[in-house]
Amino acid sequence: MSGEEGLIERWFQRGPRRPDVALGIGDDAALLQPAASGLLVACTDTLTEGVHFPEQTPPDAVGHKALAVNLSDVAAMGGTACWALSALTAPRADPAWLGGFADGLLTLASRFGVALVGGDLCRGPTSVTVTVLGTVAPRAALRRDGARPGDGIWVSGTLGDAGLGLAVLQGRAALSGPARRQCVRRLHYPEPRLTLGGRLAGRATAAIDLSDGLMRDLGRLCRASRVGAVIEWERVPCSEALAAWMAHEPEGWRLPLTAGDDYELLFTLPPGEEARLGAELEAGEPPCTRIGTVTEPPGLWLERGGYREIWEAGGGFDHFVEGA
Amino acid sequence: MSGEEGLIERWFQRGPRRPDVALGIGDDAALLQPAASGLLVACTDTLTEGVHFPEQTPPDAVGHKALAVNLSDVAAMGGTACWALSALTAPRADPAWLGGFADGLLTLASRFGVALVGGDLCRGPTSVTVTVLGTVAPRAALRRDGARPGDGIWVSGTLGDAGLGLAVLQGRAALSGPARRQCVRRLHYPEPRLTLGGRLAGRATAAIDLSDGLMRDLGRLCRASRVGAVIEWERVPCSEALAAWMAHEPEGWRLPLTAGDDYELLFTLPPGEEARLGAELEAGEPPCTRIGTVTEPPGLWLERGGYREIWEAGGGFDHFVEGA
Repeated sequence: MSGEEGLIERWFQRGPRRPDVALGIGDDAALLQPAASGLLVACTDTLTEGVHFPEQTPPDAVGHKALAVNLSDVAAMGGTACWALSALTAPRADPAWLGGFADGLLTLASRFGVALVGGDLCRGPTSVTVTVLGTVAPRAALRRDGARPGDGIWVSGTLGDAGLGLAVLQGRAALSGPARRQCVRRLHYPEPRLTLGGRLAGRATAAIDLSDGLMRDLGRLCRASRVGAVIEWERVPCSEALAAWMAHEPEGWRLPLTAGDDYELLFTLPPGEEARLGAELEAGEPPCTRIGTVTEPPGLWLERGGYREIWEAGGGFDHFVEGA
Repeated sequence: MSGEEGLIERWFQRGPRRPDVALGIGDDAALLQPAASGLLVACTDTLTEGVHFPEQTPPDAVGHKALAVNLSDVAAMGGTACWALSALTAPRADPAWLGGFADGLLTLASRFGVALVGGDLCRGPTSVTVTVLGTVAPRAALRRDGARPGDGIWVSGTLGDAGLGLAVLQGRAALSGPARRQCVRRLHYPEPRLTLGGRLAGRATAAIDLSDGLMRDLGRLCRASRVGAVIEWERVPCSEALAAWMAHEPEGWRLPLTAGDDYELLFTLPPGEEARLGAELEAGEPPCTRIGTVTEPPGLWLERGGYREIWEAGGGFDHFVEGA
């Protein structure tokens, strides 16, 4: 048994089994049985140490997050996740690290019934690319390009905690006790909103998951839909920990608008669906909040403290913009 | 338009279009329409600079190879490739490098009608993970575990050129002129054997693609099938360039048995299929060669110069074995 195969067998041939997996890990490729009806949903995302997660990140958080960010993409399409492939690069075969990574990934996979069906394991700077495949009813898929003027703009959960957690770890913000733990936890263990995405399928006019910051991802949705948006800052949902921190930071109010890594869903609902679903979404888990309205003229506007101002591009995370 | 999105639009939203792509690059995930019958084939492989390809590798070779190694996996399952997702990590947004990478990947994709439907682009040490999805008729898929005693062991093309090319680039072997160009070309631009894989589907009892060296990958196939093998060294197909080099290197004969990166297909044929297909495979493009026989007792044996010896484990490429 060679090194790579031994490690793959030991750490990754666990997790949920599904009857639609004809052949899993261990051959040149996996063989899968897609649902007879429905479209296949496919996405892939890379996390690199020092870029997407700090070097001291616990290995189970790396495994969790690498899968979670892809499940979040499936959620943003209104889909159900079925299968995952994981390509892991690590500088050495450290059993404790690999075991922790596999635990984090497979624990999350188990919660959503996702089978790990393939992957790759090789040597190099720490990085992981996960691909997730899922399914969605053809007309129910949530795209970015369906928002219409007059739709309400909604977001799940609270925004900014993960960004504050990163600032804390990087020494750019001070926080202690439960508030610190909560924010670091939200950074390390994002919760993919698959159940909510499934509820919104066929109902929301557009959706995107928030990976790079509210205003940046909203800008993407608006450009794809050829619309604009007004966001009411006072409605943007924040945790008590973040609210307490913002109260003492003059520029802190920007954080929930620009910080990445929230992995909440941003979606638009036409007035009829707001009337039907709104109260239920507000009372749901996670609670959803209406934070603004889609407008016909392009551009993003922010209302705050009684003033409305155009939101200048910038802020949020982009890998290839200088200074981002 | 943000940096990452601008780059993705500019470089990657090209290549073949397919009617079974409901939604391609640009949303949270791709939406695909799998064939009504047939299994889905899914595989993922990472190439990291300095590990899988030397630092001076031309960018179009990186793009070509990143897709080719995955197409080779689909070929080894007897499948047809349909869609690809590419997750690229690069230290900076160098337009010449990115353009070359995209050209190499998309030129190969076009040749096999594969649509690039998604991906990721981020900053970090150069590395690329491609995922390929394809299809195969359920009972026709070529697995590793079907080889039976008495089956012939076959291989496509010639072995060892890519390994010699790597040795040349690393200064471990001297070669010049057309021989050097040929070997470096085989290292940089492996040819996925999709047409051959499709021909073997439902006929070969087992198959694997040769990424880590003949004897290592044969060992994997034999372990999966719970059989052994005898390989006749004199039958192992080598190019004239490699044969000329081997003639002057006392230990050179090991290279076609151990060198990686050939991406030829290794497959087993029962006697009936050998009688039906053998002559056609030998005369095909690439020509295929019978190099040995599957045996009931486990273990790999090598016949060379009239002697038969057990092949000791070792040789071939493994990421996590010391000294490999």
